[in-house]
Amino acid sequence: MNFCSKCGAEVVLRVPAGDDRPRYVCDACDTIHYLNPKVVAGCIPEWEDRILLCRRAIEPRYGKWTLPAGFMENGETTAQAAMRETLEEANARVELGPPFTLFDIPRINQLYLIFRARLLDLDCSAGRETMEIHLFPEEEIPWREVAFPAIERTLELFFEDRRRGDFQLHTGEIRRRPGAPREGEF
Amino acid sequence: MNFCSKCGAEVVLRVPAGDDRPRYVCDACDTIHYLNPKVVAGCIPEWEDRILLCRRAIEPRYGKWTLPAGFMENGETTAQAAMRETLEEANARVELGPPFTLFDIPRINQLYLIFRARLLDLDCSAGRETMEIHLFPEEEIPWREVAFPAIERTLELFFEDRRRGDFQLHTGEIRRRPGAPREGEF
Repeated sequence: MNFCSKCGAEVVLRVPAGDDRPRYVCDACDTIHYLNPKVVAGCIPEWEDRILLCRRAIEPRYGKWTLPAGFMENGETTAQAAMRETLEEANARVELGPPFTLFDIPRINQLYLIFRARLLDLDCSAGRETMEIHLFPEEEIPWREVAFPAIERTLELFFEDRRRGDFQLHTGEIRRRPGAPREGEF
Repeated sequence: MNFCSKCGAEVVLRVPAGDDRPRYVCDACDTIHYLNPKVVAGCIPEWEDRILLCRRAIEPRYGKWTLPAGFMENGETTAQAAMRETLEEANARVELGPPFTLFDIPRINQLYLIFRARLLDLDCSAGRETMEIHLFPEEEIPWREVAFPAIERTLELFFEDRRRGDFQLHTGEIRRRPGAPREGEF
């Protein structure tokens, strides 16, 4: 951030009075610009014993596999965001279940919220940002080709819980994979 | 948003190519400015059968009672945000439990995440944005003076679950209270 989005003057980075961390401050119109984490909402679309994954046709992680998920928009709920992303990325309609993973990724200012979901029909196909879609049984998940650590961990926990026959909400922080590149998750 | 925060040129509101909703677009430097919901993180600090509430010394809802909660900052986890807000608003240290409510408020682009929590000691006091703090048993909760619908609903569900002896994650959308003013929740 270089300029005030309200008045167009240059901003400075400093700790405002009464605050305890640096903010972009506009001294022309006295606006303080706060930056906050973004929510990534998505789901685990199930069809019998298989899971729908999307192969990314965009960067980052072009060509890698992921669950349908993306940034929540203003004016929508987390459930609406998860269903919209599933429709956009896989032309797929789902019935959402409860939240399954809620992961913090403070390093990149993101919060992942992934719901369980039931795929309503097999009339789905790759969306504009997707190269291909596929329904994977557990033993065929391309683990080495999963795009993001939060998605990999979500899938691991999903299969663990399914084996145990007891699905729970899982929370926690996702740290960088050993040896992983530094690019953003999304 | 009137100006591009990157280059300072005027922005226009239009649907970018390949997108499906209006964005603030800068034609000078080709930046699209996305606006996303903010996360409000907080907790329900318990001490024996009582709950810590804070009476707000700031707008909106000056003088009303609320749980310690506030906007999550970049670089922190939801749990860290909830604990930081509790320290800032009530000088109180807590041990967090699991998430208890996860509420969408799409009307004001907010997502509430409230954890259960155990107050670690009684060495707490009103913070800078708080007029007073008080430990309320259920029968003394000032229901008509609770600041925000998401907090009111969280407290209702908390006492319901406590009576049943079974705490669960609750999710859903918070709509405006009948007859409530239109100001933002936070």
